[in-house]
Amino acid sequence: MITIQEIKTLLERFFQPVELVGKGDAIITGPAKIEDAGPGQVSFVANEKYYRFLGEARASLLIVHTDAPVGEGAEERSFLKVKDPYTAFVFVLQKFAGERLLAAPGVAASARVAPTARIGRNVSLGDHVVVGERCIIGDGTVIGPNTVLMHDVTVGSGCVLYPQVTCYDGTELGDRVIVHSGTVIGADGFGFAPQKDGSYIKIPQMGTVQIGDDVEIGANTTIDRATMGKTVVCKGAKIDNLVQIAHNCRIGEDTVIASQAGISGSVKIGRQCLIGGQAGFAGHLEIADRTSVAAKAGISKSFTEPGIAIRGVPAQSMRDQLRLEAQIRGLGAMKAKIDDLEAQLNALLQERAS
Amino acid sequence: MITIQEIKTLLERFFQPVELVGKGDAIITGPAKIEDAGPGQVSFVANEKYYRFLGEARASLLIVHTDAPVGEGAEERSFLKVKDPYTAFVFVLQKFAGERLLAAPGVAASARVAPTARIGRNVSLGDHVVVGERCIIGDGTVIGPNTVLMHDVTVGSGCVLYPQVTCYDGTELGDRVIVHSGTVIGADGFGFAPQKDGSYIKIPQMGTVQIGDDVEIGANTTIDRATMGKTVVCKGAKIDNLVQIAHNCRIGEDTVIASQAGISGSVKIGRQCLIGGQAGFAGHLEIADRTSVAAKAGISKSFTEPGIAIRGVPAQSMRDQLRLEAQIRGLGAMKAKIDDLEAQLNALLQERAS
Amino acid sequence: MITIQEIKTLLERFFQPVELVGKGDAIITGPAKIEDAGPGQVSFVANEKYYRFLGEARASLLIVHTDAPVGEGAEERSFLKVKDPYTAFVFVLQKFAGERLLAAPGVAASARVAPTARIGRNVSLGDHVVVGERCIIGDGTVIGPNTVLMHDVTVGSGCVLYPQVTCYDGTELGDRVIVHSGTVIGADGFGFAPQKDGSYIKIPQMGTVQIGDDVEIGANTTIDRATMGKTVVCKGAKIDNLVQIAHNCRIGEDTVIASQAGISGSVKIGRQCLIGGQAGFAGHLEIADRTSVAAKAGISKSFTEPGIAIRGVPAQSMRDQLRLEAQIRGLGAMKAKIDDLEAQLNALLQERAS
Repeated sequence: MITIQEIKTLLERFFQPVELVGKGDAIITGPAKIEDAGPGQVSFVANEKYYRFLGEARASLLIVHTDAPVGEGAEERSFLKVKDPYTAFVFVLQKFAGERLLAAPGVAASARVAPTARIGRNVSLGDHVVVGERCIIGDGTVIGPNTVLMHDVTVGSGCVLYPQVTCYDGTELGDRVIVHSGTVIGADGFGFAPQKDGSYIKIPQMGTVQIGDDVEIGANTTIDRATMGKTVVCKGAKIDNLVQIAHNCRIGEDTVIASQAGISGSVKIGRQCLIGGQAGFAGHLEIADRTSVAAKAGISKSFTEPGIAIRGVPAQSMRDQLRLEAQIRGLGAMKAKIDDLEAQLNALLQERAS
Repeated sequence: MITIQEIKTLLERFFQPVELVGKGDAIITGPAKIEDAGPGQVSFVANEKYYRFLGEARASLLIVHTDAPVGEGAEERSFLKVKDPYTAFVFVLQKFAGERLLAAPGVAASARVAPTARIGRNVSLGDHVVVGERCIIGDGTVIGPNTVLMHDVTVGSGCVLYPQVTCYDGTELGDRVIVHSGTVIGADGFGFAPQKDGSYIKIPQMGTVQIGDDVEIGANTTIDRATMGKTVVCKGAKIDNLVQIAHNCRIGEDTVIASQAGISGSVKIGRQCLIGGQAGFAGHLEIADRTSVAAKAGISKSFTEPGIAIRGVPAQSMRDQLRLEAQIRGLGAMKAKIDDLEAQLNALLQERAS
Repeated sequence: MITIQEIKTLLERFFQPVELVGKGDAIITGPAKIEDAGPGQVSFVANEKYYRFLGEARASLLIVHTDAPVGEGAEERSFLKVKDPYTAFVFVLQKFAGERLLAAPGVAASARVAPTARIGRNVSLGDHVVVGERCIIGDGTVIGPNTVLMHDVTVGSGCVLYPQVTCYDGTELGDRVIVHSGTVIGADGFGFAPQKDGSYIKIPQMGTVQIGDDVEIGANTTIDRATMGKTVVCKGAKIDNLVQIAHNCRIGEDTVIASQAGISGSVKIGRQCLIGGQAGFAGHLEIADRTSVAAKAGISKSFTEPGIAIRGVPAQSMRDQLRLEAQIRGLGAMKAKIDDLEAQLNALLQERAS
């Protein structure tokens, strides 16, 4: 619980100016969505189309844009005006977010840590965690119960690995990496050499996976090790649940990949891309920086011009694809026009014949 | 092993009447598919198009519809006639289904249960299970080996959690919930606030997940916690393997979601819907009760009329989509017609010119 | 580290002849991709379009096709010429691949093995492994930490189960099967009988799963048990990450299934098929041997002619689908032509009227 004035002070660390409209001494007990928020709670309005909520909301504090038409506040409601109310509210959320207890400090009695592993300071290893030979775990990292690090895994400082994560041998995680439960990093790439009798022999997957600083990876995602070399997820990338990243891929800095997208082997995706859910990439493609890929797109060729939006199966530029979709929707009208032309032509021919 | 007469008695608890055609004293050793069933086994025929099997099947007992043309049975084969032979066979299957031993009664020595957790009567916790602080587990619930409940998780009575499930802090499961292996409930929603430099800051995911009574969730599925508030899966919903349900979704009562479907954040799906495999939903949509969504559909807008079927990418009503698909299939014919019109017109123009 | 001559000898076990061009006494320290390889390393060129690398590559040894134009080698670079350089390189990789240490020989102290389980010779069971009643584990099999075998599971000889795998009761694995982390074999098929009130009753899933010899299964994949009978994955099949194989499916010998493909219940897929990523199959279909299914295809009917390629949603033969896609791409041109015909016809009608 903090006062509105204390929230103002918190926000002033990130934004200048922060303008208070209304009273500053009311106590705020927690955040809530605008439609759910009641007395004592804080919410936010970032989008002009929700300005109608400004007068109705029952929240005691609303964080709004500098230009929001909020009048002078009221006895029961105050406002904090900032340039980016959405991000400001995130800082408020962080303030109220409870500590999640994944594992008690130190090494749980039931955890198994190989004698050659090097564990940093203030590390928490939960029950039944397994840390293999020669692993290195940085300071302040927390590893939830039943997570397994095979041998030679490096985990940076300040990381959080939730329960039931698996890191195969040789995986490298940077600092402040978050990995959610069930995710598997470093399993063998899917590589087999076809033989004449129709069977396959396994291609040894000798590479590793490297995950940059500040990457977050969702639950039950799979990131395969390289055949040779490294599969790389660069600094700041955010990867959702159930995503497949195959061997030898490279995912650029601050690129965001939504759930159930699938990236085939050796695909290189640039920086600050946005990949929609269930999108799929054929192997060995290059995708330029800041490319935006629509959900369910099927990408079968490289897109090397930065900053464009693509969509469709096979994917093409948003403009071309939307035109194509309009043409398809127009098929009924096109058919009617053809029938009409045919009727006119037939009438003409008939007339001429008679 | 039970007699045909005993199966009749069992079914009479659910159906009236149950008519026996043939002998009632033969012993039935187990169920089988119609094409595999042999002497001593029971199978069923629910669909008229399989009536040809009625005379050929080698099963000793067939459960059939009241109206099935089964004559008088035979020395080697009897029939039980009921209104709903499919459901009747399910009850027979339940009779023969063995007890699956997930965990011995009580708490396995290798399980770790926090001192503040409250465990009901007749609970079984398997090896290496972890139960966090303040968890509550209802009577008769069975939790398989290596499953992890973080702190403040509530599990109702009569639930079955298979091995390697993860429930994040605050997750609430109702009674008789079944969760298959590898499923992750309550991981952080995928929410990040973009910053001017292209990087993201994490939006704290402060909500939880609530799973209603009688829900079954398949293997390796992910159901994310709400940003604020709750992600809700209502009573009786059935969710298959590898499904993604994002933060703040609400899945209605008795709705069925097939494998690999993906539901983006804040989608509200009504009651008794059927969602096909690999279907994908954009965020913040509303889907009315009893909507039927075809496999692989891409749903990009709300569908608020109850009881309709939708299909396609982007999804539209089944009728409109089937018409569109027919138009697309007709493109070859359309092109031929245009060429024909062109030829006729050219002939006309030529003739006129000469 | 081995000499070029020793690699030649190794390859001669598989290929005849192996021709050395250049010196045989140089020491090779490891393999690398052609673009990364430096002095002391071995790489390969299998494809003519990469022949330009033959003169540039800095590798000390290149494995190439018998017909590759490699001249006489050079002081710093040698060649080994074989009929199948790709497969030959796989054997070289195998030579250099390190031993991956999943679990120390024997049974880890923290593993829990039921008294009725039968464990073969030279078996390694990692920390926190759980082996249920009446399980049978063959000689030389290695099971990584935190993997769970429920009761009555049979695992053959020489298998590798990575950490956090779950095999439900009754699952049977052949010899030399590899299962990657997070994969769930034998969870209940997704079967529910609809009731009049809109709710469902669970259909007991009484069958099992049978995995043939030499099958490899990726990470976080799900293979459900049969309702009755067996779900079968035949000898030599290779299944990628995050794949769904539903109850009662049969996957033929040496069939390859890429990531995120979904196979609905009771689908029978033949031998030596190639199933692309994110492809989806409706239930109860039959797919002939050697069928090639494009990524993202939606297969809604059976394809019973062996050896064809299919593609699209709904899937059809590659030829028909490519024609359809060309017709769709041609919609703009078609529209222009119609407009042109209309203009000509209008001109004609106008002229006639005047």
